[in-house]
Amino acid sequence: MAGGVGSRFWPYSRNNRPKQFLDFCGTGRSLLQMTFDRFARIIPKENILVVTNKAYKALVMEQLPEMNEKQVLLEPARRNTAPCIAYALAHIRKRDTKANMVVAPADHLITKEDEFLAAVEKGLEHVAKNDVLLTLGIKPNRPEVSYGYIQAGAENEKGFRKVKTFTEKPNLELAKEFMESGEFFWNAGVFLWNAETIHKAFWEFLPDLAAKFDEASPMMGTDEEESYINELFPTCQNISIDYGIMEHARKVDVLCGDFGWSDLGTWGSLYDLSDKDDNGNVILKCRALTYDCHDNIVVLPEGKLAVLYGLKDYIVVEADNALLICKKQEEQRIRQFVNDVSMMPDNSDFI
Amino acid sequence: MAGGVGSRFWPYSRNNRPKQFLDFCGTGRSLLQMTFDRFARIIPKENILVVTNKAYKALVMEQLPEMNEKQVLLEPARRNTAPCIAYALAHIRKRDTKANMVVAPADHLITKEDEFLAAVEKGLEHVAKNDVLLTLGIKPNRPEVSYGYIQAGAENEKGFRKVKTFTEKPNLELAKEFMESGEFFWNAGVFLWNAETIHKAFWEFLPDLAAKFDEASPMMGTDEEESYINELFPTCQNISIDYGIMEHARKVDVLCGDFGWSDLGTWGSLYDLSDKDDNGNVILKCRALTYDCHDNIVVLPEGKLAVLYGLKDYIVVEADNALLICKKQEEQRIRQFVNDVSMMPDNSDFI
Repeated sequence: MAGGVGSRFWPYSRNNRPKQFLDFCGTGRSLLQMTFDRFARIIPKENILVVTNKAYKALVMEQLPEMNEKQVLLEPARRNTAPCIAYALAHIRKRDTKANMVVAPADHLITKEDEFLAAVEKGLEHVAKNDVLLTLGIKPNRPEVSYGYIQAGAENEKGFRKVKTFTEKPNLELAKEFMESGEFFWNAGVFLWNAETIHKAFWEFLPDLAAKFDEASPMMGTDEEESYINELFPTCQNISIDYGIMEHARKVDVLCGDFGWSDLGTWGSLYDLSDKDDNGNVILKCRALTYDCHDNIVVLPEGKLAVLYGLKDYIVVEADNALLICKKQEEQRIRQFVNDVSMMPDNSDFI
Repeated sequence: MAGGVGSRFWPYSRNNRPKQFLDFCGTGRSLLQMTFDRFARIIPKENILVVTNKAYKALVMEQLPEMNEKQVLLEPARRNTAPCIAYALAHIRKRDTKANMVVAPADHLITKEDEFLAAVEKGLEHVAKNDVLLTLGIKPNRPEVSYGYIQAGAENEKGFRKVKTFTEKPNLELAKEFMESGEFFWNAGVFLWNAETIHKAFWEFLPDLAAKFDEASPMMGTDEEESYINELFPTCQNISIDYGIMEHARKVDVLCGDFGWSDLGTWGSLYDLSDKDDNGNVILKCRALTYDCHDNIVVLPEGKLAVLYGLKDYIVVEADNALLICKKQEEQRIRQFVNDVSMMPDNSDFI
């Protein structure tokens, strides 16, 4: 799934260059490319589909030249994850109605790839044999309030747990209780299931979507696909797979682990993940001289120099023609800032 | 006088683009150009000399195409204001040993030009008739600690005062006393005198310099000037006209007024001079959205956008490849920062 816009990384991410296409870690590979590389280690490349917004087709093809154009599914409108997954499912079912699938966001970071891939392989085996929807759960390492949590039962002998509930983002107090209890895990948005199981679940919980994409299925991979999807997609309900199916399904398991996972949701989470200097500053891409500066994250274009005096707990990010300076603990406001920028006259260069 | 480097406006000013060549006010004219325009209202253009460092010859000619190359005197080394003025004096004396002169820095701002020019004309008349060195004094509007002060006697019937002492930069307490006393004025570094008077003063207080430039005088304006000055100038004593002559001369007058003068010495003084928004922020050249921001000065290249949250009393300046963020009250440290930058490896792009 590579269709997000993501304004939380503004000004680094822009409408025409969202987070999944950025080389966050400076490794020379974007998050999308890293996600592709990761799965390509255990899944044949021709079995990988990328679902993205129409607007990003060229970007995807440029970043993943090893993919056939037909593997890139284009959404003509933003409709959240349930229609996105239904679309991919229609494609997959045309090739193999009994395929085992893994669904993952293309804009997350996984630093422990081996553990992650071992879990995916184990999970695929599990959903092949059992009529169950499976999700990956991340063992929390901090009382994070910006994630959804999964409450899970005891681990069975094979390492799987039954999902009790999917929870909304908690407040800090609750997040601390979640952590201490040991039965709550972060919902990483990574799902595994057999095509038959999820197809049944669509019919049970989102029958309108199921009907639409069953009708669309014969067109998949043909010349008619694009125009058909262009008609159909915008009529789909805007709903997440979590809210539309996972929270209601009766047989949902979770496989928990620590995969060095981050959704890189905000500058603050990038700060948490990154190496720090002796004063707790994270300096990415650029060079910096800091004086009396603590616990900041500074990201300027390569080749630039920052000289900073007397900043504590700030985000300082520059990209192209925009500079953002914001207190780290107020970063949830960045969405509002970007919205305000979008209201400015002559703003098109900035968003 | 247009030879300064001035690191206090880093990163906006650089070694190859010092303050006098910058369009600080966004009017389309640099401080040097504004200084030239100002004096050209009362002094024939061909009687204006610019003394600058060799390295800035091309910049001066580019910014002042109306000047003849021979009006631009090139210093092959930095030797403070006394040698600079002695060099200009040698030029002027070759044309007219009885000329009346006004000497002014090319990197100051004067917002009340009419008052200023009226004072200059009155001063030129005064030094034409009297064997006296004259300086302009600025009525202080705040207890500034970064300026030198002139202690002056009572105003005579013509509006002139005798200088009692030139003082060093005072501490805040003393600066407040200076202001209250009513007999202290800022030393703006603008001097008026007759060529004979200052020539005598050079022989009295800096005889070595006087002898050197008397010897050089016949070469002025000839093909030999450049090579002669290249030899002579580096051997000159490094000394200011204030310290070398003004503080010792017996007959020094001061003409005081309020000329909307600023030496634009620092980002802080530019802040003080500039229009502010409702929250006391000064935004120059760029566009900005500010949230919970007070009393900052923000200068980014034209066309850029700054989004700022939770900054109070900061300097935020970007130019080319460098970004400076510094508490306003710590701006005197910028010199140190620039020095530190000059110690970095591969730093040549930054200074």
